[in-house]
Amino acid sequence: MFKRVCVIGVGLIGGSIAKAARANGLVETLVGFGRLDDVENLQLAKDLNVIDEFYTDIETAVTEADCVIIATPVAATENILRLLKPFWSKDTVYFDVGSTKGNVVAAAETVFGFVPDNFIPAHPIAGAENSGVQAALVDLFVNKRLILTPLENTDAVALQKTQQFWEKIGAVVSIMDVQQHDSVLAATSHLPHLLAFALVDMLGRRDEQEEIFKYAAGGFRDFTRIASSDPIMWQAICAANKLELLPLLEQFKTELTKIQNLLETGNYLKLFELFSYANTARERFLNQTKN
Amino acid sequence: MFKRVCVIGVGLIGGSIAKAARANGLVETLVGFGRLDDVENLQLAKDLNVIDEFYTDIETAVTEADCVIIATPVAATENILRLLKPFWSKDTVYFDVGSTKGNVVAAAETVFGFVPDNFIPAHPIAGAENSGVQAALVDLFVNKRLILTPLENTDAVALQKTQQFWEKIGAVVSIMDVQQHDSVLAATSHLPHLLAFALVDMLGRRDEQEEIFKYAAGGFRDFTRIASSDPIMWQAICAANKLELLPLLEQFKTELTKIQNLLETGNYLKLFELFSYANTARERFLNQTKN
Repeated sequence: MFKRVCVIGVGLIGGSIAKAARANGLVETLVGFGRLDDVENLQLAKDLNVIDEFYTDIETAVTEADCVIIATPVAATENILRLLKPFWSKDTVYFDVGSTKGNVVAAAETVFGFVPDNFIPAHPIAGAENSGVQAALVDLFVNKRLILTPLENTDAVALQKTQQFWEKIGAVVSIMDVQQHDSVLAATSHLPHLLAFALVDMLGRRDEQEEIFKYAAGGFRDFTRIASSDPIMWQAICAANKLELLPLLEQFKTELTKIQNLLETGNYLKLFELFSYANTARERFLNQTKN
Repeated sequence: MFKRVCVIGVGLIGGSIAKAARANGLVETLVGFGRLDDVENLQLAKDLNVIDEFYTDIETAVTEADCVIIATPVAATENILRLLKPFWSKDTVYFDVGSTKGNVVAAAETVFGFVPDNFIPAHPIAGAENSGVQAALVDLFVNKRLILTPLENTDAVALQKTQQFWEKIGAVVSIMDVQQHDSVLAATSHLPHLLAFALVDMLGRRDEQEEIFKYAAGGFRDFTRIASSDPIMWQAICAANKLELLPLLEQFKTELTKIQNLLETGNYLKLFELFSYANTARERFLNQTKN
């Protein structure tokens, strides 16, 4: 499918894409790019046969690449696009993997004055507890959602190639607009992460005095698992998507006020109805993810 | 250890206690008690050899029992104590398994005018996703915390027997006072359940229009797992412990307001610090539960 794919940022996501592309015969040569202080990691990626070559010089890295994948943390996208700009090729397909898309589009506009028509904003909804290329999995994207958020000027061929690439490594591709993506992900991913961080922050300060965590059970472990996510990455995601997150936080506070009122007034029937509705809605979610 | 144990409410918890007591040779005869509409379940418990006999008449059920275990939902405790009162024996050890303790003590005071000195409020911090006696596990309490909340007048021998019983089926027993128990559990269990129900309730209503759950990933599944808990049981627990929960909900809203302010003012360093603190606190929690 591609002769030469350059992966910028060979971590969990970039490494998993490379492994899956190789396993599915979608690429002849896999090139890694990173900064000077990434050399150790890039060498590891090469030793693990995740990539064939690596460079810390962008020009060498992208020369003759017909596909460039930006798999760095979302906050680095603008800098990467700035590095790529002088060597940008009309014959290459570019896509990223960032968890927010509005800021990626904005970064392209800042760097180029517009979004190049062969740059496809993409977001694979997949992750793992561990990070780094040593945690990369060949099947990380199998049966996982991938969202593409093309713009009006997006080149149809580049879009199609990107979609095919992801489908061939197992992802279920959806196409939506940038704002809808950021709104949906704020609700289903960014807000839950914020709530988990907020709860563990609040209780952690109390735990320092009382060791309350000693008495927390498995439910607490599950509920707070996402508070073990990378703080740098999540600070960047929340910052990037704050316009969607702020009203959701307000809405959630209103929801909590509603529950406070039900408790205060002893309206336990309504409280039961709310819990039952949530229970049923979660069943719907589980059924959707099964299919 | 006991000749005749009567388990009132042979569900997941009651059934697991019975199985563990039998497996550890702590009891000669296991008796189940339930209402008339529980007969099918009690028969199943007998068929599964979880109990030896069962009765729907309380007097027959508790006759000659030297230990009576109240393993019904927490909201039923007062009614059960009322049933037990005419046959209450000074030579029997009584304990319950409710998730809240202040209301159990209050129920005993309502029924008896005081808390009988041989009734030990107990709370095993264990559960499972499934319910019913068919889901009962012989090792449900192994290495799980069990909290006893004795009162000033509690009989030392009854307390010691209860503690030994739980330790022999594998639990790690802590003793704390009633109010401390309810405060700690509100923070580590009841508040997280409320937040999960609240989030899924809020997003569920949006999902009905937009199918946003389609784009939710594994983190969302973990975070909301506890919203699949039994709504009746959790409505009762929240109602029982509302005096502890209400200020916690207020505190959590304040925490969210703090985060909103950090986002609004672009104070991402402080946001990162908050996420990092939570991250470290969760590590501390994981290390505690490992030991």
